[in-house]
Amino acid sequence: MAGAGNVLPMPVRTGSVIEICEVGPRDGFQIEKRFIPTERKIEIVNGLIDAGLKKIQVTSFVSPRAVPQLADAAEVLAGIEKKPGVILTALVPNARGAERAAETQLDIMGLFCSASEAHSRKNVNASIDETLARFPPVVEIARAAGKRVQGGVATAFGCPFEGDVPPQSVVRIARFYRDLGIVDLNLGDTTGMATPTTVRAVLAALREAVPEMKVTLHFHNTRGVGLANVMVGLSEGVYRYDSSIGGLGGCPFAAGATGNICTEDLVYLLEESGYETGVDLERLIDVAKRTEAVLGHELPGQVMKAGPRLTRHGVDAVSTAAG
Amino acid sequence: MAGAGNVLPMPVRTGSVIEICEVGPRDGFQIEKRFIPTERKIEIVNGLIDAGLKKIQVTSFVSPRAVPQLADAAEVLAGIEKKPGVILTALVPNARGAERAAETQLDIMGLFCSASEAHSRKNVNASIDETLARFPPVVEIARAAGKRVQGGVATAFGCPFEGDVPPQSVVRIARFYRDLGIVDLNLGDTTGMATPTTVRAVLAALREAVPEMKVTLHFHNTRGVGLANVMVGLSEGVYRYDSSIGGLGGCPFAAGATGNICTEDLVYLLEESGYETGVDLERLIDVAKRTEAVLGHELPGQVMKAGPRLTRHGVDAVSTAAG
Repeated sequence: MAGAGNVLPMPVRTGSVIEICEVGPRDGFQIEKRFIPTERKIEIVNGLIDAGLKKIQVTSFVSPRAVPQLADAAEVLAGIEKKPGVILTALVPNARGAERAAETQLDIMGLFCSASEAHSRKNVNASIDETLARFPPVVEIARAAGKRVQGGVATAFGCPFEGDVPPQSVVRIARFYRDLGIVDLNLGDTTGMATPTTVRAVLAALREAVPEMKVTLHFHNTRGVGLANVMVGLSEGVYRYDSSIGGLGGCPFAAGATGNICTEDLVYLLEESGYETGVDLERLIDVAKRTEAVLGHELPGQVMKAGPRLTRHGVDAVSTAAG
Repeated sequence: MAGAGNVLPMPVRTGSVIEICEVGPRDGFQIEKRFIPTERKIEIVNGLIDAGLKKIQVTSFVSPRAVPQLADAAEVLAGIEKKPGVILTALVPNARGAERAAETQLDIMGLFCSASEAHSRKNVNASIDETLARFPPVVEIARAAGKRVQGGVATAFGCPFEGDVPPQSVVRIARFYRDLGIVDLNLGDTTGMATPTTVRAVLAALREAVPEMKVTLHFHNTRGVGLANVMVGLSEGVYRYDSSIGGLGGCPFAAGATGNICTEDLVYLLEESGYETGVDLERLIDVAKRTEAVLGHELPGQVMKAGPRLTRHGVDAVSTAAG
């Protein structure tokens, strides 16, 4: 073990509580081509709540023409059996969406703005400045309706059109949110370009510029390193993560590539590392399997296939061939 | 970012060289039902060498009856174009295998013994003591032939039959290897039960008992946390990892679960974290795609699907639907 004495141990904060926000019903469902019946969506969200998830991004109040899959945003929210302590969030891109969301049992309206000009124009057909200009009315509507607001930054760790995204582009949007009185900041790894180095760089820049912000990391597993990035986030003191049931979702630029990090795999990693998530892994795996059945295609989650760590097999089970 | 000041940063050792041992041709191929023609195996290994991999576990000198897929071990070794600096390894379970391996251009004979009695009996039909008793003759044959020996421990982080494996069970086997003069120790996460906590516990026990051992970590991604475990290994000062091209392999106990951590994803993670691997990622992705074509089924690797991080897309590419 050469060099073992030269490096600092990674911190283990046994007992630390990690807040997981389940985003599958929004980030995952939106890329499904076949419309998922509203009742099925509601059942999955209620199942997630029963499994112990306390924060769920259930939908998006975007234009129903742009994203027909989420046209039933208000109906989904109406059907959710919200237990005490459960927080429901949804993306809200503009005042029209905010007016629709204000009428529901939603707790948090989520704003989002790309840190890359090219992605912003491509995604919402508006520049960064034009996008930010839409937010003050949303915040006003949210506050009048007693809702909280979270500020999201898309392509925070890289852009599929522009490449590297300077941390200062993220800081600029974070400052705009702070000046609107928003303290919850979500950093979106929209197409899976986050790496240990970029995660550290963005967090360092934010810590310097807007230390009051509470950061949530929203990683995608597009290049297989989503949970490795979570380890970096934990070592940097970030305790809020987004993830998706079954790893639901995908990357629009790469056929077969996966989307968000998987909730069961994240819960497994965290609980096995001594953190508390409040989630019942066995029940969560059941929800992942039911979600797979509803969608009619395989999901990339691993723990849902292999089972929890101490799943026992009889010695007459199929064997390995060697070491 | 609550708590950011309370934790130590994870170390970044920019420029540190990581030794990757590619094990797909052994650990991956052995579970393929259809026999892969010897020529195809040789082409894949030669492709891996051309991509810059310096250490490759090419086969296993187990009984051809037990593992027909690897019956061509000697022929595969004969066909490999070994460039300067390249090290070829193979598993060698007993003296009979050692005699076959001694005649080849193999550099390292790999011993392996389960740290769990139940897995040992199931895997090689022998107790731990019976297995260890087979090793001194192998070491003798290896040394007479000018070959090095690596000592492997299977189920080092958990057993699918027994559950948790005490770190002292790993230490016991490591001591046996050390007493045979073996300093290379490979810790096998045979069915993907390693977690940050178990990795730290086993490494701590070994550091205490056999500090002279050079440890290689052999993680499986069965539960999605393989690369998160690599982050833990790095923070503990371990710089040797096994991985498999395309994530080739699988778990005999869980249909659809993946096997070894994927070499391209590992190279991507390490290079993006400031480590050096000596591997050309683009060429490695080509080998992964050729391997997929030879096997005739999809491999779980993610970088081979999504491409390297700065893969650019035209702004007229398919869009994301939201943040």
